[in-house]
Amino acid sequence: MKSLKELGERKIIEIILKHLEAMPNMPIPFGDDASAIDIGYGELAVIKTDMLVGKTDVPRGMSLWQAARKSVVMNISDLAAKGVQPVAILVSLGLPGNYTEKDVEQISKGANAGAREYNAYVLGGDTNEATDLTISCSAFGTIKKHLFMKRSGAKPGDIVAVTGYFGKTAAGLKILLEEMPTPARIRKTLVDSVLMPHARLKEGLTLAKAKAVTASIDSSDGLAWSLHEIAKASSTGFYIDNLPTAKEVQEFAEINNLNSAELTLYGGEEYELVITVAPESWEKAKIAVEDGGNRLIKIGKVTKEKSIILRTDRKVFQIEPRGWEHFKTN
Amino acid sequence: MKSLKELGERKIIEIILKHLEAMPNMPIPFGDDASAIDIGYGELAVIKTDMLVGKTDVPRGMSLWQAARKSVVMNISDLAAKGVQPVAILVSLGLPGNYTEKDVEQISKGANAGAREYNAYVLGGDTNEATDLTISCSAFGTIKKHLFMKRSGAKPGDIVAVTGYFGKTAAGLKILLEEMPTPARIRKTLVDSVLMPHARLKEGLTLAKAKAVTASIDSSDGLAWSLHEIAKASSTGFYIDNLPTAKEVQEFAEINNLNSAELTLYGGEEYELVITVAPESWEKAKIAVEDGGNRLIKIGKVTKEKSIILRTDRKVFQIEPRGWEHFKTN
Repeated sequence: MKSLKELGERKIIEIILKHLEAMPNMPIPFGDDASAIDIGYGELAVIKTDMLVGKTDVPRGMSLWQAARKSVVMNISDLAAKGVQPVAILVSLGLPGNYTEKDVEQISKGANAGAREYNAYVLGGDTNEATDLTISCSAFGTIKKHLFMKRSGAKPGDIVAVTGYFGKTAAGLKILLEEMPTPARIRKTLVDSVLMPHARLKEGLTLAKAKAVTASIDSSDGLAWSLHEIAKASSTGFYIDNLPTAKEVQEFAEINNLNSAELTLYGGEEYELVITVAPESWEKAKIAVEDGGNRLIKIGKVTKEKSIILRTDRKVFQIEPRGWEHFKTN
Repeated sequence: MKSLKELGERKIIEIILKHLEAMPNMPIPFGDDASAIDIGYGELAVIKTDMLVGKTDVPRGMSLWQAARKSVVMNISDLAAKGVQPVAILVSLGLPGNYTEKDVEQISKGANAGAREYNAYVLGGDTNEATDLTISCSAFGTIKKHLFMKRSGAKPGDIVAVTGYFGKTAAGLKILLEEMPTPARIRKTLVDSVLMPHARLKEGLTLAKAKAVTASIDSSDGLAWSLHEIAKASSTGFYIDNLPTAKEVQEFAEINNLNSAELTLYGGEEYELVITVAPESWEKAKIAVEDGGNRLIKIGKVTKEKSIILRTDRKVFQIEPRGWEHFKTN
């Protein structure tokens, strides 16, 4: 029988879902960024849990404060992608017995900082002894039912857009783990994208309020994977003709003789929003994001054909369904 | 600087709470069985997270199915103690890479079973690679604000009561871990209390609905610790004159020359409710629990003096504030 190392995370999730009884009239199907419960009054309670494990999720150079903050931010990012203001965070800790009081202090402060940056509060949690640092957070918020942004509403002809440039975490990880040479002027941006991620909460909230999008996902598993997830949930494909590579990533790739498209598409732990917008709603979406001080980058179109195509200056090829995957990628 | 092993779980929690900013107008203070958020309409959203770690929480003899079921049930028990029907469960998994498809199947089925027994559903989760089995669950439900049963309302003169007899898990663990001799006729009851715990959800729901209690807690950290928690939160003490020792525990203690009061008071991972009831509400509370097919056992009285006293046939002594504690107890 295959071990989990051989199966990989996606297959494991498939196995799990096969054995879960689905709640009748579930407002959001399994597999979206977050789960939702109809609480009446036209509102959904939205909950999300995501675990950070020391060995696989905390690269060299990341402090305990940063790890704890990140464990909160990655949950907030999922709520952001659904248009939901996070209100409460729970933090379950598994801590090695040789950690000190100072370590616990750093973890507590980091979790608190992650929540407060987004106007949420840590309300409770649990503490356990473990062999490796484990931080499992849950985030909670509510939203008017008709404002929730699912993965599944993309329509052929819609514009696909993102809230920022990609590839920085893939480059940042290579700097942290492989010590790839990098000019000082871009090093900090790249490394900070890994150590101090930010959730696009403002953008998610204003986009939901404007009712401007047809589908939305956070890009925590990488841009390619996010496009594949929307495509699968919406039964569509994509034609991407403006790959959103960060300029620092372009430079980093040239210096280190790497493929910048690869870094842009197949990284992960990036917390941009990937959204689809009906052409007639584009202005509304653009203004919603600009009101929050950011800008929306058009990267292509939703297609009826289910393949996901990238056209660059030089060639046209398929974007593969791969990205960060536990069990397989380490 | 002290390591966590030297500090112990209670002290660690103190350190954590010192560094968390408290939500203004938090409906339930830090440290109750579950956290709550005012969602308007006179209702609270109630959330709870609790993590199970293989090394410390899964004794020899417990299957993966049972471990996953237990990880859900222990969260449901906390909602039960607050009078809250659990609706949704999230399950964050840390799984060793050498686990098989079959193992994942057992874990999924166990988590699903734990939720469905209490009319809740697993709505989502997260999967990670970890060195040791880690199951971090979160439970969610809503309740009318005035029905929520806190830890903090005990008043001198109130009756203190429990929903079942104690000591079975302490004895069961000794059977599983130390192979203490036990007659077959009581072995199963004692071992099952560890492997197949049950949450007192029916009792919690009917007690809350009847508005019959002044304070309520689940006894997952042991009877002694639960009494100390209510006492601390309510600024009271207790006079216990009817120690609720299970008859199987009495017999097990006699055979193995153990102190049955010790097993009754200082065990843990028991999921009874410990409640306080104003004398004039006693009939109401009794009927509420009997309607659910169980019975309420009076064990003593709430006192103004803050000590927690046990009177047995032979002597009077103080019940100490100890019980199951991570980091210190293993």
